[in-house]
This record gives sequence, C-alpha cells and structure tokens, in this order.
Amino acid sequence: MDRDRILLTPGPLTTTLRTKLAMLHDWGSWDTDFNGVTAGVRRRLLDIVHGHDSHVVVPLQGSGTFSVEAAVATLVPRDGHVLVLDNGAYCKRAGKLTQMMGRRVSVVGFDEDASVSPQVLDEQLRADASISHVVLIHCETGAGVENPLAGVAAVCQQHGKGLIVDAMSSFAALPIDAREVRFDALIAASGKCLEGVPGMGFVFIRQAVLDGCAGNSQSLAMDLHDQYSYMEKTGQWRFTPPTHVVVALAEAISQFEEEGGQPARLARYADNCRTLIDGMRRLGLRPFLKPEHQAPIIVTFHAPDHPAYDFKRFYAAAKTRGFMLYPGKLTTVETFRVGCIGAIGRQEMQQAVNAVGEVLREMGIATAPA
Amino acid sequence: MDRDRILLTPGPLTTTLRTKLAMLHDWGSWDTDFNGVTAGVRRRLLDIVHGHDSHVVVPLQGSGTFSVEAAVATLVPRDGHVLVLDNGAYCKRAGKLTQMMGRRVSVVGFDEDASVSPQVLDEQLRADASISHVVLIHCETGAGVENPLAGVAAVCQQHGKGLIVDAMSSFAALPIDAREVRFDALIAASGKCLEGVPGMGFVFIRQAVLDGCAGNSQSLAMDLHDQYSYMEKTGQWRFTPPTHVVVALAEAISQFEEEGGQPARLARYADNCRTLIDGMRRLGLRPFLKPEHQAPIIVTFHAPDHPAYDFKRFYAAAKTRGFMLYPGKLTTVETFRVGCIGAIGRQEMQQAVNAVGEVLREMGIATAPA
Repeated sequence: MDRDRILLTPGPLTTTLRTKLAMLHDWGSWDTDFNGVTAGVRRRLLDIVHGHDSHVVVPLQGSGTFSVEAAVATLVPRDGHVLVLDNGAYCKRAGKLTQMMGRRVSVVGFDEDASVSPQVLDEQLRADASISHVVLIHCETGAGVENPLAGVAAVCQQHGKGLIVDAMSSFAALPIDAREVRFDALIAASGKCLEGVPGMGFVFIRQAVLDGCAGNSQSLAMDLHDQYSYMEKTGQWRFTPPTHVVVALAEAISQFEEEGGQPARLARYADNCRTLIDGMRRLGLRPFLKPEHQAPIIVTFHAPDHPAYDFKRFYAAAKTRGFMLYPGKLTTVETFRVGCIGAIGRQEMQQAVNAVGEVLREMGIATAPA
Repeated sequence: MDRDRILLTPGPLTTTLRTKLAMLHDWGSWDTDFNGVTAGVRRRLLDIVHGHDSHVVVPLQGSGTFSVEAAVATLVPRDGHVLVLDNGAYCKRAGKLTQMMGRRVSVVGFDEDASVSPQVLDEQLRADASISHVVLIHCETGAGVENPLAGVAAVCQQHGKGLIVDAMSSFAALPIDAREVRFDALIAASGKCLEGVPGMGFVFIRQAVLDGCAGNSQSLAMDLHDQYSYMEKTGQWRFTPPTHVVVALAEAISQFEEEGGQPARLARYADNCRTLIDGMRRLGLRPFLKPEHQAPIIVTFHAPDHPAYDFKRFYAAAKTRGFMLYPGKLTTVETFRVGCIGAIGRQEMQQAVNAVGEVLREMGIATAPA
C-alpha cells in the first residue's frame, strides 16, 4: 500500500500532514507576509528557551551542521581556542570543522557510553587558560547520550568561558532555560524535535556577546552576525530562504505549542522511549547505554549476537513492514539505533517493536527476554 | 480570495502544484529510496548541460549563494587569485565572499547596463599572470543582463585559467553545453529556472580539476570535494539533506523534461519577456536595458517619472491584484524589476501588465506608450 513509512531516525523524521500541507504555497521571500512568518518563528523560538531578555535567535539556511559551523565561525575570534568535550561522532565533527576554519582546537575525550564530565572540564580550564570557548553536544546521538548541560554551563560561567551548545537533537524536547543556564550560543534545526522538515537551522546568541561577533567569520554564508544585522534592519533573510521549509516550521511550532510545549513533547518522547526499550527487552534486545545516560531521543541497541543477524537484511525486513530503523554509529560495537522522536506516539512505537519481533523470528533469531 | 499570488521575482518563484505536492511525504535521508532520488536528480542535471563525459555535479544544502561560496572555496587553492567580472550586485557578492575566505581577489568593473567584455578579460589576463580563476555571473539579475559565457570561457581556456560560472538564474533556461563551453565550475539552485522550491544548490565541477580540489576548503560545510567523495561512496549526502526540497526538485525536473527541456523553457520565458516588455511599453514604462543585453529572466524597468509614484504603494497595489513585483537593485537609477521565470506563461504576464496598468491609473499616473 502507498503509505508513508514511520521514520525511526533522528531527523529527518515523521512530520504531521498538517506540517507538510503548509508547503503547498509559494511565498515571495522579499514580501512582508513572509517577513511576518520569519519574525513569528524567531519570536516563538525565543519563547521556548525563555530567552527574550538574554538572547537573539538567528536562522540559517542549510542543515544543522551548517549552523554549528556558523556558530563557531561567528562566536569564536580568529585567535580563540576551542575545547570540545568529545563523547561521540557529532563532537568529533564539531572539532573537525573548528580545526578546518583555522581556529585552535583541543579535544578532551570521554567514553561514548557515558556523559561528559563537568569536573574534567573544570580541570581542563584550570590547566589551560588560553581556552576561550567550550563546545558541548547536548544530546550526542552517536550513541544517544544526554550530556549535563547545566553542569557544564556552570563551570564555563565560573571560568568566564564562552559555551557553544549543539542542541540539535534535544531542543524543544529536553528542558533548556536561558534564565538558568548561561550559554553564548545554542544551535538546533527545523527537522528535529520541533518536527518540522529539514532545511534550516537556528542559533541563539547571547546579546552580551553579539556585538563582539562582528567580523569573526571568514565565511559570508556562515556569518551569523551579518545575517542577524540584515534581518533586524530589513525583516528579510540575507540570501534566499528555504521558504517552504520556513512555513512548515511555523506550522510545526504551532502544533508544538498546542500540544503543551516542551514538557508535553518530552513526556511523549519519554513514553515512546520507555515503550521501545521495554518492548525490545522482551525481544531479547539490550540497550547500549545505562538508563542514567540515555536521552529519550534515540536509543542504541546491541545487535543480536547471532550468526543469522545482518543489519541490511534486518533493516530491509523492518522497512517492508513500514518502519525505518537507523544504523549504529559506534566503531567498536555492532549496534543499531531507533529514534523516539517525530510525530509518533506509543502506538507507533509498539507497532515498531512488534515488527522487529516478526523480523527477528523470520531471520531465525530467537526472541527471549534479555 | 485565498489564492496564491503570482511571484514575478527571480526566485523563489511560482511552482506548479505537482511540484509542491511532491513534498507531502517524509523520506529517510539514509534510505536507498532517497539515495535513488538524489542519484536521479544528479544524473538529470548532468543531462541538461551535456556534462556526463566532462563534469560531475555536487548538490549542496542552503541557498544558491552557499553554493557559490562553496565553489570558490573548493576550486580555488589557498594561494589562488580570483578575478571577478563585475557588472552588478551578485558579482560584488562573489567578490566579497572570495575576499572574506582569504583568497586574493581582483575585481574589474563594467557598467551595470551592459554585458562584461571578453576582450577586457583578455587584457586583464595578459596584464596579470597571477590570476588563477575567473568568476562570471552568467545572468546578472541585479539589472537582468546576460553576460557572454562562451566568449569569456574561450578567453579563459586560451589563457589556461579556471572559470567559475554563477549560472543561478540562467541554468535550464539559457543554453549551456559543457561539450562546447569549458568551465571548471558552474553553479545553480533548485528554486530558479528548474522551477523547484528553494533550499539547495548544485555545482558542476570539471572532472579534470576535481582531484586537485581536495583540501582547498577551509569550511567543512562548504567542502564540495568532501561532499562529492562521500556521496560517491555512500549515495548519501554528508549532512542531513533538505529531503522535501530534493523530492520537489526531482518532480520539477520531470516537468522540465516533459515540457521539452531547455529549448522549450527558453521559448516560454522569452515569450513571457516579450509579452511583458511589449505590454509595459504600451503603459509608458521603459526597460532599463537595451534589447541586446536583456536576458529573458528578469526585466528592470525605469520607475515612472511622476511625483505620484512610490514603489511601496505601487508594489502593494499590484500585490492586492495578485502579482508580486520585485524592487530594483540599482543604486543610481530608480527602477523596479519583474521576473519572467517560474511556472507561468503568456496569460499570467498579460494579466500582470493589465494589473500594473490599473495600478498606475489608480495612482494618477498617465499611461501612454513610451
């Protein structure tokens, strides 16, 4: 049957029909009507982090990684020194893009099955006064770990260091309150927990550091200070915005608000995550992370320890049944991942578990409680 | 009535309902089905320039300007020297982004009401052997000028210089044949003459220079060599693609092919342009450019020389009647612009002319043949 599959991936994810229907119009990017959409999105994004008194928000075309690179390029001066707290693939990517743009970068490594440590950060900052900025991935979806944003932010504040948070997969689901947690920049994107379609990111920048960002970026496209200044002056994006993506995001935010905002979204995702983990355990599939490190965003499972298991066959058989799983991203252990986010609830998660059970039996892999 | 207005702008433009309906599905960006869409788009883009034997094509997230910056960052070595042929706002932007990324850049200026000169380019290249690359804007939509791609390409080839062509507003409408015209990179985007929605660009890169591009870019996001290598290896985009924009582009390309490809599209746009200019002349509105410089993409008109004229009122009144005009981008003369591109034909252009006539009469501006 011609029915969309459920995307159990960390974005692009399943969106509502209402969100997609918003894309059935063409908008002039120069027009005041579209400027109104942009302004509304920016205002409501600031609502979500309670950031109106402390931050501005700057949208940017491209994938989330474009916004991460733009945040580093815009926030960190040319002679800055960035410390990346690394417990996974997205941390490594942040380190790489910082190094490529010619900023000095240091990386402190942590195990990928646990959160990064504010205490270790404190030691690093004591040991090297040249560090100007710290990069934290809030939810490292490589394994699915939630990192301690509040603890890291407190240490950065004590030391007077700038904090750049990649909150790509956590924003709008995990609580982030700019009145309580100090960050210089925080980055997310349209196609994640706000349940829009992919195509743009956005960066919250602390007002106190904004003016100092002028001239930092060596990239025109990635210059968030320039993007901000132009948008404030004209209401428009500097370069052609992905108009359909922007209006879909506006529509997705309306549904986010109607659902009850971040607490409601977290509750639904947490329920999805519990339904998933409980169901998979009954099939004999073990989550890779300990519960205390697991964010309710994406769950890494150990692959079945069975000669008949093969990810491609497993994936294809689940897809046939209407569910798109996600490959593992760990280098040392064979795993697969299942997202808990998107416009899906307990029913879809239970159906996904049922489908995985069928697939394992079809592959001749015993399903027994782990 | 709740009916979409006609966008007489150089993109985002009016797209067909069929193109927009393609966005009513969610796609897994890792999945083979989506990889198939990407591969099909890339193959058909190469068809359009007859480039299969000479070029590869690399799609990139973001607006067209992102792809222009990426092309310069990827093609031009750190010690390269770029000459920009400048006859308008988009040329100046190309010069600025080149300078910002730290590449040496020279700009040779031309009048904005005429095409750039291959002969002047020849003199420049004779005078300064350090120039490694030339940047040409094929259709400079600041005023609407068509620049001589073939002539510029021939001079670059004679001198053994790399040519980077911003064909944002010309690709798929004006003829470009990679078998006859040599370019190292040529850039366009989804939301222009292919009549897709905005959100991604793409860059044709000559195979002979591709390997030499590795390591040039200081930006991870903008590194087209890295994007290319990853896509060849995996079939996937490096970072989350704007999935809905990509499937809309695939659908738009199908309609482009069904219409008869580039010759048919050019014929329709040329007819649109004639209908527009003839109609506007009858209203007393003069095009800014001489016919020999005018590309059938966007037309700059002198604003009426009348005290009652005000662009904002003019724009608002045309919008009320269902037509979105575009402001002028010239600094010295008061003008406005009207696009000829998008999923529109002679009827829409004539209706637009009729609406402009009504607006002028409403504003108390005499309409008499120029």
